[in-house]
Amino acid sequence: MGEFLKVVNYKDAIKLIKDNLPLKKTKTVTLLDSLNHVLAQDVVSTEDIPAFNRSTVDGYAVKAEDTYGGSESSPQFLDFKGSLQIDQESVIKINSNECLWIPTGGMLPVGADAVVMVEYTEKLGDDTVLIFKPVSPSENVIQKGEDVNKKQTIFTSGINIKPQDIGVLASVGITSLQVYEKYKIGIISTGDEIVPIEQKPELGQIRDINSYTIASALKKIGNTLRLYPIAKDDYNELKLSIEKALSENDLLIMSGGSSVGTMDLTLDVLLSFEEAQMLFHGVAVKPGKPTMVVKIGDKIVIGLPGHPVSALMMLYILCLPILGVSSINTIEAVIDINLPSQAGRDDFIPVKLIQTESGTTATPLIGKSGLMTLLSNADGYIHIEAEQQGVIKGELVKVYKFN
Amino acid sequence: MGEFLKVVNYKDAIKLIKDNLPLKKTKTVTLLDSLNHVLAQDVVSTEDIPAFNRSTVDGYAVKAEDTYGGSESSPQFLDFKGSLQIDQESVIKINSNECLWIPTGGMLPVGADAVVMVEYTEKLGDDTVLIFKPVSPSENVIQKGEDVNKKQTIFTSGINIKPQDIGVLASVGITSLQVYEKYKIGIISTGDEIVPIEQKPELGQIRDINSYTIASALKKIGNTLRLYPIAKDDYNELKLSIEKALSENDLLIMSGGSSVGTMDLTLDVLLSFEEAQMLFHGVAVKPGKPTMVVKIGDKIVIGLPGHPVSALMMLYILCLPILGVSSINTIEAVIDINLPSQAGRDDFIPVKLIQTESGTTATPLIGKSGLMTLLSNADGYIHIEAEQQGVIKGELVKVYKFN
Repeated sequence: MGEFLKVVNYKDAIKLIKDNLPLKKTKTVTLLDSLNHVLAQDVVSTEDIPAFNRSTVDGYAVKAEDTYGGSESSPQFLDFKGSLQIDQESVIKINSNECLWIPTGGMLPVGADAVVMVEYTEKLGDDTVLIFKPVSPSENVIQKGEDVNKKQTIFTSGINIKPQDIGVLASVGITSLQVYEKYKIGIISTGDEIVPIEQKPELGQIRDINSYTIASALKKIGNTLRLYPIAKDDYNELKLSIEKALSENDLLIMSGGSSVGTMDLTLDVLLSFEEAQMLFHGVAVKPGKPTMVVKIGDKIVIGLPGHPVSALMMLYILCLPILGVSSINTIEAVIDINLPSQAGRDDFIPVKLIQTESGTTATPLIGKSGLMTLLSNADGYIHIEAEQQGVIKGELVKVYKFN
Repeated sequence: MGEFLKVVNYKDAIKLIKDNLPLKKTKTVTLLDSLNHVLAQDVVSTEDIPAFNRSTVDGYAVKAEDTYGGSESSPQFLDFKGSLQIDQESVIKINSNECLWIPTGGMLPVGADAVVMVEYTEKLGDDTVLIFKPVSPSENVIQKGEDVNKKQTIFTSGINIKPQDIGVLASVGITSLQVYEKYKIGIISTGDEIVPIEQKPELGQIRDINSYTIASALKKIGNTLRLYPIAKDDYNELKLSIEKALSENDLLIMSGGSSVGTMDLTLDVLLSFEEAQMLFHGVAVKPGKPTMVVKIGDKIVIGLPGHPVSALMMLYILCLPILGVSSINTIEAVIDINLPSQAGRDDFIPVKLIQTESGTTATPLIGKSGLMTLLSNADGYIHIEAEQQGVIKGELVKVYKFN
């Protein structure tokens, strides 16, 4: 009873799932909707940005050489040739010893090669501007194409699109683009003892915590979810439920009640599907060894432990990485007790972070591992890798933060 | 022209806005929808969790004292009294030298005070179980109320709800709760030179980058946004646009074209509203000095610089903190050049992070500050505070990461 049929280590578990994930479909979205998606095309600019030599300050467009030697005590005198409107191309050409008022963002007139900031100038009557500080050529000017070059590949497929990327895309006039669709993920809790959260459990029963923690952790990273009714420990009921969820999703995340019996039954049902292939049954990690993954056709079913704390930890350490949440928020901290660890097993231990004068301290929360309140109280977790024999008090550790 | 009327330092700017923010409304949401919201009530449990003494393993429920002295070579012999189903209350009482099979999550029978893991047992025939390892009282058992106590305040108003909190709430049967509504935020870009992104700019014009970067940075933290049409530098048009946006939102974020003229006009229009009160006009930061905040009635208008890079940086450093995004992802890194900084001014400098063998290095991206591609290429920014005179090559700095 409850033997693990194919135990793998943590790294292999991640690799096995990644290698067998369904192909991602692509879709076209508007620029704003592309946020937090992975780009599925290369983007080439068809324009120079800026499209013209552009002033970065309010001031006077000049020939730089005409300002050389200007100082507070001995300014240069330039002829004022008028003011440029922000959205206009200048029709006035700047000749030696001439200047033109130009607003920030304005287009540099022909003949000018720099801009003197208004702070270092003074208008003298209608026709003359005093220059108190010299500028060098190109000073306070962004050259045509300096931000983005025409025909430049500005982004390559595979990047995760962030606000400033959207800024670059907006600047070159990209209004829609191809991104990868996120997986549709179905969630099923199983087990005779599990009852809906709105129901008062009788003695021996427990509420369906897992559907909610799994759904919210996935929702947080922007996935599309579908929650299915709790499935009892009944072969036919379970099979129908899995069939339906598989037909409506790319991935299925199940959590297996807390008993080995439920897990065994779930595995039986999963392997009864045509094309079912067990990728692994058991991962050498703590907590969460009773985790299994079965490939059915081109879809993947991940069976997490039933225990709510283990299930959520496995979601963080196994499911989020395979869903491409690579840049989990990490921080370095000093561990404040010795933590032994079994060689050959990857340990993940929730910690509380405390700011001290000398830095950040991580206190492992190693009470009864069954307590969800303990995980709720944690700021993150540390990862003791399989090769390590543990960590020693005072050692610097990497903390993966929950927020 | 373009004088700053009331320049404040960075800390005061944040405080001034925070002190004048509209009161937050509360709303009732379902448990799953409460994710990433701020709790607006205290939550008190009406139940003990677990509601019964619960086994954390598959094994045999025993009186701990009956297992003392058991070892591989000399096991204890206990009488097997049957198996407990996962969702059932045991009707069998455990007496001395008796044991009962119990699954993980099962309810401890009366008389038992510990559970021996199945790995350390062997069933001998129908009636006897060998115990190869002793357990202490309470071992492998979560006591009734150990996770959550009846009448315990499990969460207090003000916390940001994360997946494991949702787990705790699910465990005690909370299906809906009071959270603070996020602010509705209107976004208006202004300036004669700004054209919609789908339009090809003529010489002197530039696309509306700011609406998209501001909207996506706010969307990323879960805010409700409304984008308004670009407003030209026209007093009446601007006034109508602001009136409409104020009536439909709690906050209004404007970006002011790139010229001082546009900013001056925007300020005039804002101050023309009854009950308008200028909180500040100018912040001693780089980049982004030309930032202003006006309170109109109980609403707040934030005028960001028109320059896209400055506008987005100000959004990150000024707007996100006041919207309660406190736990920005930070990492420590070694700065790889000297960076001087003007005392009395807070400097924010984009950096690229590079992983080296000795740790993480931060390389400031200090080319022309006007380049959005530069910000798109940055991994985060560092903050040189007003009291600091700069940072020195090799110093450890805190990097605020964009992801």
